[in-house]
Amino acid sequence: MKSAVEALEAKAKAAKAASHRLAFLSTEVKNKALQNISHDLLFRKSEILAANKIDYKEAEASGMSAVMLDRLMLNSSRLEAMAQDVLAVAALPDPVGEVFEMRTLPNGLQVGKKRVPIGVIGAIYESRPNVTIDIPVLCLKSGNAVILRGGKEAINSNSALVKVVQDAATKAGVPEGAVQFVENTDRALVPHLLKMANYIDLVVPRGGAELIKFVTENACMPVVSGGIGVCHMYVDKSADIKKAVAIAYNAKVQRPTVCNALDAVLVHADIAERCLPAMAVEWAKAGVEMHCDKRAMAILKKKRSLKLVPATEKDWGKEFLALIAAVKVVDSLDEALEHIERYGSGHSEAIITEEYQAAMRFLNEVDAACVYVNASTRFTDGGQFGLGAEVGISTQKLHARGPMGLKELTTYKWIIFGSGQVRP
Amino acid sequence: MKSAVEALEAKAKAAKAASHRLAFLSTEVKNKALQNISHDLLFRKSEILAANKIDYKEAEASGMSAVMLDRLMLNSSRLEAMAQDVLAVAALPDPVGEVFEMRTLPNGLQVGKKRVPIGVIGAIYESRPNVTIDIPVLCLKSGNAVILRGGKEAINSNSALVKVVQDAATKAGVPEGAVQFVENTDRALVPHLLKMANYIDLVVPRGGAELIKFVTENACMPVVSGGIGVCHMYVDKSADIKKAVAIAYNAKVQRPTVCNALDAVLVHADIAERCLPAMAVEWAKAGVEMHCDKRAMAILKKKRSLKLVPATEKDWGKEFLALIAAVKVVDSLDEALEHIERYGSGHSEAIITEEYQAAMRFLNEVDAACVYVNASTRFTDGGQFGLGAEVGISTQKLHARGPMGLKELTTYKWIIFGSGQVRP
Repeated sequence: MKSAVEALEAKAKAAKAASHRLAFLSTEVKNKALQNISHDLLFRKSEILAANKIDYKEAEASGMSAVMLDRLMLNSSRLEAMAQDVLAVAALPDPVGEVFEMRTLPNGLQVGKKRVPIGVIGAIYESRPNVTIDIPVLCLKSGNAVILRGGKEAINSNSALVKVVQDAATKAGVPEGAVQFVENTDRALVPHLLKMANYIDLVVPRGGAELIKFVTENACMPVVSGGIGVCHMYVDKSADIKKAVAIAYNAKVQRPTVCNALDAVLVHADIAERCLPAMAVEWAKAGVEMHCDKRAMAILKKKRSLKLVPATEKDWGKEFLALIAAVKVVDSLDEALEHIERYGSGHSEAIITEEYQAAMRFLNEVDAACVYVNASTRFTDGGQFGLGAEVGISTQKLHARGPMGLKELTTYKWIIFGSGQVRP
Repeated sequence: MKSAVEALEAKAKAAKAASHRLAFLSTEVKNKALQNISHDLLFRKSEILAANKIDYKEAEASGMSAVMLDRLMLNSSRLEAMAQDVLAVAALPDPVGEVFEMRTLPNGLQVGKKRVPIGVIGAIYESRPNVTIDIPVLCLKSGNAVILRGGKEAINSNSALVKVVQDAATKAGVPEGAVQFVENTDRALVPHLLKMANYIDLVVPRGGAELIKFVTENACMPVVSGGIGVCHMYVDKSADIKKAVAIAYNAKVQRPTVCNALDAVLVHADIAERCLPAMAVEWAKAGVEMHCDKRAMAILKKKRSLKLVPATEKDWGKEFLALIAAVKVVDSLDEALEHIERYGSGHSEAIITEEYQAAMRFLNEVDAACVYVNASTRFTDGGQFGLGAEVGISTQKLHARGPMGLKELTTYKWIIFGSGQVRP
């Protein structure tokens, strides 16, 4: 164990050393590194897919669920998509070096802020191997070193992918050590990693609630956490029912296992009789199970072939990550706002309405990372928001909120140009 | 103790409740509150000064140092200055509600960020009573509730000041509970306050190294900490010696007990023979003691009436908070940069140079909250930088770096205007 901790510390130290040079790397070199990574993901496809096959077979043999197996699996088209995403990040402007809020004070001092990398980012994540590309790509572009600690189930895939990243980056002139990978997936090492505040400036956990809780409670360095999304959709009395039904379907069904999927629908009593049956029929086609409060149940129980379950208190505020939705009839926008304040996780919340005032109140009053009018909560995503990719989705308020892209991987320093000024 | 913790929790809870309404308070009401506070600081001068007199006499009797007594003391002109500072914050633009980075995506979604208050700010601070005005004023203007826990030595002054703030704010229409004050200065309560992450969104410690360490290690909510400044000034070989001497004098002497005061001077060997004696003579007038490395000592020992002490390893990286400066001769800008990287605290660092390339390298390569060319480190201050006032000076990289003003007391949420969009 001692030597494993020392090996880990050596990696963290090497990342810190690399970060000092990374901070001054030209945009040209960084973009070249990203282009190389994109190219080599396809060029070295066979070794990546072979490694992935080993993980997949082991996971299958160990009885991993179909959903988790699907997350783990790589194929040509997925690699193609990953390679495209890397090029998209290469095409984004370099956030480093931007000078902003610069002004000249009455005493002649020019004072402003300059955007700089944070330093070393630690990423602790679970099964999806694409994170092994997304995070280092965003870190490199923003001038940060990174230390990656992925899940045991994807260890062969991650090792192959990180090798592609390291080789491609080095070829472009990125300093060695900029992308570190922890091969040793012994869980007992994680707490040691979380103590290395001297070398790691920020830790981003990506995975389930348990992982996030563990990292938040044990890290000595700052953590940007998120990923838990209890997402509500409020259907206002003035809602366009067609939009409500389509958005509810998309938000619940399109990818139910992710944090921005819909968990609960609150429907205004004035529209519930017309809206709920239409919504339920659509959902039924995908096999959605509805956990209904009494009033929703009264409306829906006449309908056949619906999976209806009486809601209990623990359905409110629950992240289902499955084809299940909680449904409640409310008497007003105020009641919906109170429900969301009480049970929401501050991730993504939506209102469906045709009334201007209701839309504006919802946007203003809901306290969440992303607040929507007439759109699916599934859009909460760095790629969808035009950030190229994301390191994660923050549900905290400090530093970064919502999808974290390049800019959220930077900080600033004040720069002051003087000509001999002293303070009176 | 149990009832004291309950009383504290009731305050934190009341602050949280007030924060929901504060977030939507109009700029007009907030500015009116600040104008009232400014007015009443002078209108109620006699009760404030009477309370301060009690603190002062007790502190004097207990043997408080002259420096600390001076920090504690209020008088008419200090109240006048505080009242002016409050008006300066009232005159600043309201940071809340700013919508930025809004753009329309190819699918027609309008996505952007809206600036919103953080919620409830906890401030834990030591003797200076002006903090009892500065922090609630910045919090009110930025739509945050605040819970203040000041030092025991200033309890009467702080109580009188916070009463002025509360009365003046309520008169203007600020919700009751927005400004909470912890009268009970029992230290055993502080760890309880630091556990109330449900009610307090951010804690700002202001005071000595011990307080900051305690808060950082024990808080369950995010902390923005700073206030430790080991500040260097590097005198390049091309420096204008007049500027170097004037800036060294100002940065060391004008107010030696604060975090942005100068601690160490690094002088290039090519200019040391001319620069150091001139600097030493000026410093001697103020009684500055110089802790010199061997080469600096060799240059200065011929001079009379200087307080010279041989530097030891512990002089490098030390925050003196007194009329003491460490002095070292270096052979290059690189050596100065290495020294600062090793011993600096990431607060404020300055170069004195007439060479463009040296200035740019120093600005780029020094990793600190504030990096200066040809100016005194004493400018690192919210008021001096045009932020009106400051909640504190952050030396961390996440969320805020350097002086924290109104903007640093806000976060953002993503707002998304749709027309029925679903994710493909």
